[in-house]
Amino acid sequence: MDVAAPFWMKIDIEYELILTLAGDKALIEGEIPEKLTGIASLGEAMPGDLSFLGNRKYRDQVAGCKASLVLVPLDFKRKPQPGQAFLKVADPSFLLALICREAERRLFPKPDAGIHPSAVVDPTATVATTASIGPMAYVGPHARIGENVVLQSHVVVEAHASIGEDSMLFSRSFVGAHCVIGARNRLHPGVVIGADGFGFATMGEEHHRIPQVGNVETEDDVDIGANSAVDRARFGSTRIGRGTKIDNLVQIAHNVQIGIGCLIVAQVGISGSTQLGDFVIIGGQAGVAGHLNVGSKARIAGQSGVSKDVEAGRTYGGIPAIPFNEYQRLNILKRRLPELFRAREKGESGRS
Amino acid sequence: MDVAAPFWMKIDIEYELILTLAGDKALIEGEIPEKLTGIASLGEAMPGDLSFLGNRKYRDQVAGCKASLVLVPLDFKRKPQPGQAFLKVADPSFLLALICREAERRLFPKPDAGIHPSAVVDPTATVATTASIGPMAYVGPHARIGENVVLQSHVVVEAHASIGEDSMLFSRSFVGAHCVIGARNRLHPGVVIGADGFGFATMGEEHHRIPQVGNVETEDDVDIGANSAVDRARFGSTRIGRGTKIDNLVQIAHNVQIGIGCLIVAQVGISGSTQLGDFVIIGGQAGVAGHLNVGSKARIAGQSGVSKDVEAGRTYGGIPAIPFNEYQRLNILKRRLPELFRAREKGESGRS
Amino acid sequence: MDVAAPFWMKIDIEYELILTLAGDKALIEGEIPEKLTGIASLGEAMPGDLSFLGNRKYRDQVAGCKASLVLVPLDFKRKPQPGQAFLKVADPSFLLALICREAERRLFPKPDAGIHPSAVVDPTATVATTASIGPMAYVGPHARIGENVVLQSHVVVEAHASIGEDSMLFSRSFVGAHCVIGARNRLHPGVVIGADGFGFATMGEEHHRIPQVGNVETEDDVDIGANSAVDRARFGSTRIGRGTKIDNLVQIAHNVQIGIGCLIVAQVGISGSTQLGDFVIIGGQAGVAGHLNVGSKARIAGQSGVSKDVEAGRTYGGIPAIPFNEYQRLNILKRRLPELFRAREKGESGRS
Repeated sequence: MDVAAPFWMKIDIEYELILTLAGDKALIEGEIPEKLTGIASLGEAMPGDLSFLGNRKYRDQVAGCKASLVLVPLDFKRKPQPGQAFLKVADPSFLLALICREAERRLFPKPDAGIHPSAVVDPTATVATTASIGPMAYVGPHARIGENVVLQSHVVVEAHASIGEDSMLFSRSFVGAHCVIGARNRLHPGVVIGADGFGFATMGEEHHRIPQVGNVETEDDVDIGANSAVDRARFGSTRIGRGTKIDNLVQIAHNVQIGIGCLIVAQVGISGSTQLGDFVIIGGQAGVAGHLNVGSKARIAGQSGVSKDVEAGRTYGGIPAIPFNEYQRLNILKRRLPELFRAREKGESGRS
Repeated sequence: MDVAAPFWMKIDIEYELILTLAGDKALIEGEIPEKLTGIASLGEAMPGDLSFLGNRKYRDQVAGCKASLVLVPLDFKRKPQPGQAFLKVADPSFLLALICREAERRLFPKPDAGIHPSAVVDPTATVATTASIGPMAYVGPHARIGENVVLQSHVVVEAHASIGEDSMLFSRSFVGAHCVIGARNRLHPGVVIGADGFGFATMGEEHHRIPQVGNVETEDDVDIGANSAVDRARFGSTRIGRGTKIDNLVQIAHNVQIGIGCLIVAQVGISGSTQLGDFVIIGGQAGVAGHLNVGSKARIAGQSGVSKDVEAGRTYGGIPAIPFNEYQRLNILKRRLPELFRAREKGESGRS
Repeated sequence: MDVAAPFWMKIDIEYELILTLAGDKALIEGEIPEKLTGIASLGEAMPGDLSFLGNRKYRDQVAGCKASLVLVPLDFKRKPQPGQAFLKVADPSFLLALICREAERRLFPKPDAGIHPSAVVDPTATVATTASIGPMAYVGPHARIGENVVLQSHVVVEAHASIGEDSMLFSRSFVGAHCVIGARNRLHPGVVIGADGFGFATMGEEHHRIPQVGNVETEDDVDIGANSAVDRARFGSTRIGRGTKIDNLVQIAHNVQIGIGCLIVAQVGISGSTQLGDFVIIGGQAGVAGHLNVGSKARIAGQSGVSKDVEAGRTYGGIPAIPFNEYQRLNILKRRLPELFRAREKGESGRS
């Protein structure tokens, strides 16, 4: 088995398809490639690859690029090398996105509708005829699987849970009993929706579990990354708003309320009952304490620790988190601490 | 599919049941509700819901509460609104807990005993007749599944592992070969018990794996949260004491020894061979370095980094972790650093 | 079920086998043990156990050690207790490693080759006859499973993915479509290789997913810990170099390039497109921002946050990360901040 060979991406992107996606105003220059079999950045492309100049600051890299076809802006001056073509378009990045979407459809084709014979679907569950239930998936009693939903292999949707139309549940994602997933959600492998919240009442030396009888509800167009966990509410719902995107290994505790369009980067933790407004951005590995309000369009720097409410539109950083400008100033001053100590010693010796 | 409708929680808590749980001294005032179909906080409750005044500081919220039934203290003065009832009891929170436990039993009924036909159970395994082995679960050779244990779908219990009575293994939890789980444990979805410890001997430029031939042992009443990992010991056991509760996405390295009744919040990491006493509390995202002792009843603030032993009963915070009072004082002084630099500049210019 | 009994480790290490592994120059002293049934450290060993003096600083613990057989250096002076034997060898740690490797083979025997009847293997997949496909594993279309590969229960290898010879995929590990795993890799339970990278183009108030049409490629001898995630590239490959070892709950974002022989400890996060050289070591819970270069043999302290390039061979710590020596000096000075403020107050009152 030759691991080095990029056998995996023989996607045969037809040059004709690219021309069609490029539209009428595109101009071709150079030798039209016979076959395109991969996509790569300017620096990494090999013959047979498609590449692109997405950002003008990389324009000097085009000269050395080995790609067979390079997408460049309409006003790009340089000429292609022998055996290479330039396709000049208004927005190379946008054309690339269209091509990538087509490549994605080919590399990861949507499975056929129907229930794999190895899947276990409770007879009381409702599964749309257009849905695809993969190998060894499990759908519990009274669960509801919407139109065009895909459950990949080993997905678990427990009793009374509901999956909105066009949602994609990747392998081994889990939706607990009574939870509600919106339309067009993407739950990546290992996601756990609806584990118990971490709630205990300590009496004497024993931690008694507080029953967690709420659920999790996600609105439409939510993405949740690999191995992330969203706990069910104590009662009511842990809620994730429309269009919010959550990265890998993120922890969302019980009763958290997240608004629409938020971006939450990998390994963030949000503690119980905290509320995020809309379009909040939280950098990787940051933590937010419980029962706080983070206003809309607030931005939290990676690795910071939010221990108080954050007003809408503010940017915070540090542990504990403070306004970002101040945080950055203090980071600079902190490194100048030795000056203060030296000055003080000098001052003291001067005085004596 | 109407995602907004809270179809998921039609639990029909009978008013009569609540009265029974409330006991003889309870007093009812107002219109007895026909039907209760949900539980919600004072601020979020809708008609049909049960709510409660658990903490007197929220007493003013009772006036605007729309719940059909509100649990209030015996001496509560206000009158219910039309179409609403107050149930006056000595301890509304305690009654709520009893009701929630009953709701939990209804929302998440215990599956019947027996082995699902899609499960794979090795013929040499011992499975109690009262245990429930869910869809597509796997029980390996010589494994032992105790009385009343529930393995939900896709649970894996490997060879020679043992699960104590009344334990609940949620979907996709994993117990590795030769590991021992106590009674009444709750392992949430995605938990990994008994992966290899991270141990390598580096010779020249190669990292040789050190065999990890120990196991993991949990005592009774341990909870471990979604997608957390507890590594097997190099030899001997990684041990988690009775009644210790571990949240989601926590990492417990090989040979760690955790005492009884500890609380370990989400995304904490504890490095190899470290020992925790009893009733230690560690806040979210904190880390503890390897080969350390953290004494009983010590408390470690969230996001801190413990790099030295911590004495029993002490509270530590910061990276590296220091006594919490000092940590807080320094946090305040840190923000006043600009004063020192300004003063110094003034001093210098004054001198010149 | 008697949980306390260490039934799990009756591995019956024959004394004769130990002698053979010890070689010709080994000297035995004391009573030869009848049976050895466990391995333990000097302080924890019980009769029946094998123990060892790996580091001379623990030599005083040998006196109180209850093990039936203790491996000691050739020049060790003390005599064994009654009922105990010492085996004197040049390198007790090395002999222990050989014994542990044998114990590992017995405790975790390699499963037989072949496909478990409950597994689902697509007819277009290529599975070596020497490979073992465990219960309820799934192998997708055109996937390739190399010689001697073990897929434990519930492993998923998606379409067109490839697993190199002698690799071990533990229960519930996942390799996404088109990803390439090298030879002798060990993927622990819950590993997710090839989830989508976290890439969005925000237009107005909507986050549009950027297609992620690359893959993940690991070279030979890579280990990845439980519940870690390695995202597929936007295009091209996210790459992990030969002999690199990754601990549990680590996040590797799209297009990250990791060199050979790196050690990445638990809960580390590496952001998109960052490049690590060879033999880089990153301590637990550290984070590395995106699009950075970390040079070969650089060392990053646990919990630090790398926000700029790090030169080869340097050691960095802190958030944001700075040279480690400076970081440590500042940690000391930070705790002396109160002195500066007190001095200033004194100075001011002196002046007035």
